[in-house]
Amino acid sequence: MAPTTPTVKLASGYEMPIVGFGIWKVPRDVCADQVYNAIKLGYRHIDGAWDYTNSAEAGQGVRRAIEEGIVKREDMFITSKLWNNYHAREHAHEMAKLENEAWGLGYLDLFLIHFPISLEFIPFDKIRYPCFWTDKEQTKVTPLSKVPISETWKALEELVQTKENPSGFVKSIGISNFHTQLIYDLLSYAKIHPSVLQIEHHPYLTQPDLIAMAQENNIAVTGYSTFGPLSFLEMDHAAAKEIKPLFETDAVKSIAAKHGKSPGQVLLRWCTQRNIIVIPKSNSVDRLKQNLDSCSFDLSDDDIKQISSLNINLRFNNPTTLQTPIRIFP
Amino acid sequence: MAPTTPTVKLASGYEMPIVGFGIWKVPRDVCADQVYNAIKLGYRHIDGAWDYTNSAEAGQGVRRAIEEGIVKREDMFITSKLWNNYHAREHAHEMAKLENEAWGLGYLDLFLIHFPISLEFIPFDKIRYPCFWTDKEQTKVTPLSKVPISETWKALEELVQTKENPSGFVKSIGISNFHTQLIYDLLSYAKIHPSVLQIEHHPYLTQPDLIAMAQENNIAVTGYSTFGPLSFLEMDHAAAKEIKPLFETDAVKSIAAKHGKSPGQVLLRWCTQRNIIVIPKSNSVDRLKQNLDSCSFDLSDDDIKQISSLNINLRFNNPTTLQTPIRIFP
Repeated sequence: MAPTTPTVKLASGYEMPIVGFGIWKVPRDVCADQVYNAIKLGYRHIDGAWDYTNSAEAGQGVRRAIEEGIVKREDMFITSKLWNNYHAREHAHEMAKLENEAWGLGYLDLFLIHFPISLEFIPFDKIRYPCFWTDKEQTKVTPLSKVPISETWKALEELVQTKENPSGFVKSIGISNFHTQLIYDLLSYAKIHPSVLQIEHHPYLTQPDLIAMAQENNIAVTGYSTFGPLSFLEMDHAAAKEIKPLFETDAVKSIAAKHGKSPGQVLLRWCTQRNIIVIPKSNSVDRLKQNLDSCSFDLSDDDIKQISSLNINLRFNNPTTLQTPIRIFP
Repeated sequence: MAPTTPTVKLASGYEMPIVGFGIWKVPRDVCADQVYNAIKLGYRHIDGAWDYTNSAEAGQGVRRAIEEGIVKREDMFITSKLWNNYHAREHAHEMAKLENEAWGLGYLDLFLIHFPISLEFIPFDKIRYPCFWTDKEQTKVTPLSKVPISETWKALEELVQTKENPSGFVKSIGISNFHTQLIYDLLSYAKIHPSVLQIEHHPYLTQPDLIAMAQENNIAVTGYSTFGPLSFLEMDHAAAKEIKPLFETDAVKSIAAKHGKSPGQVLLRWCTQRNIIVIPKSNSVDRLKQNLDSCSFDLSDDDIKQISSLNINLRFNNPTTLQTPIRIFP
């Protein structure tokens, strides 16, 4: 019997499992199997995005698990995200529709604005991955496009299934990579409250004010890249290669030893104990199991403080490194 | 003969003197004299705000200098700022009108949104200073109010004097304490380009990406609290009392000695050489002269780098310290 993951109650009223399987960088050819196997292990939450270009394969994996009776659709929580080139109302609607069709599960549980920046429209057949900030030939960064966040948010609100909008195919909506000033502004005009804020979050980048602001305002926080540099090594990221891996820091090693858990489990629990949702990825069945099982022990307040004190405000996922820098992080 | 201060050309087309006299914390009873004396020394740029509650007195000082033939109105550059309780369109218009009347100079050269957060309306006769984030009795923080920044920006645009709007009494408009995500968003809907971004900027808080983003987008940057903790000692600010004064750091002391300038002049030049406008305050005539004269020498690139390397992301002006924290800085 697979363990039951605790859930976080969203502003929308729905429950979101606090540990999910993130499919950023999961190759298309193995994505259906990995998602299917994750569900078999007990995962009920899959975190995808248009930008990851593997939604159709992930959807196949979920449908196989449903067809085999392992789960029902309503047991699963599926997240996808709107990419930067599709912020205009009609593009957002079209992309969400295509993304929902790619998953093939009838609806999406959560749909996020992936980044708070609008780039020029790229026709839907011109997908390229990775690093979809540039044109297909990677010769230049896509220019910015003047679409206010308020237009994009309103477009997402129009996708939400309600009594008044029964044809909506999205249950909850949210944001990703937003900072507090833009969130305060969004809260001033949002008709539907954002359910989730997804941000880069690990001991080298703790962002306590951003997390406090979101949680104080009933926006659940999902942290991505919980293992810090590890997520970026496969992208040949310079800073990620230079910095000490989090698993090898004294704080994480000694706390893991004390609790008889793996460093990865300690980092995940450091998040979930503060009610931060996590979406780790792994190619190994053992680590997938460990990750899912990471809520089965508790860190002490002092453990959490020790890990948080590793903070050096080191951000890995930052478009300032583009040829034409996009400076969305202060 | 007073020295002529270099100017920065704004997006609006107007020129703004790169050194101004900031009147934050200048007491009402001495404000008229201090402003008058600053103009006699050669200052042509005064930085005020509704929140400083000394605009009427500052205006008296300017008018006296004009009446005595020391300057003409068009030689002066007057900045004021919209406080947080007046973000709604009609309140912004009313407050700008009152502020313009308080100065009594016919028009304002620059009008800024002081902070990117809207608080509940407080009637115009209920001014209190300092720390106008709370009610008059300082018992509680004023609650947030749901006014989008886009409404406030549009209200400011309607104040700008143009051929189509000859009764406008503001020449240029801008923002203060904004971060990049909110600026990108503002640029997506602004009909009038923001001329200026005013931010806290000193060697303990350098914010290079924010400054680069603004300057790349033709928004001139004004730095406040150039001397860092010094501006906050009189407010009994805990962190300001703990940290080493910038004037006493090895980098600033040795660079000042090398150039035969004061530490204050070195810090101001560290800004102006990067095209950052400064608005120092001083009660001493000698220091006022030194500050105004701070563009008369050049730092080396290495000097600038050395000073910038003091950065520790230490912000002094931060409403997270309020009883109910407002978390606008990530």
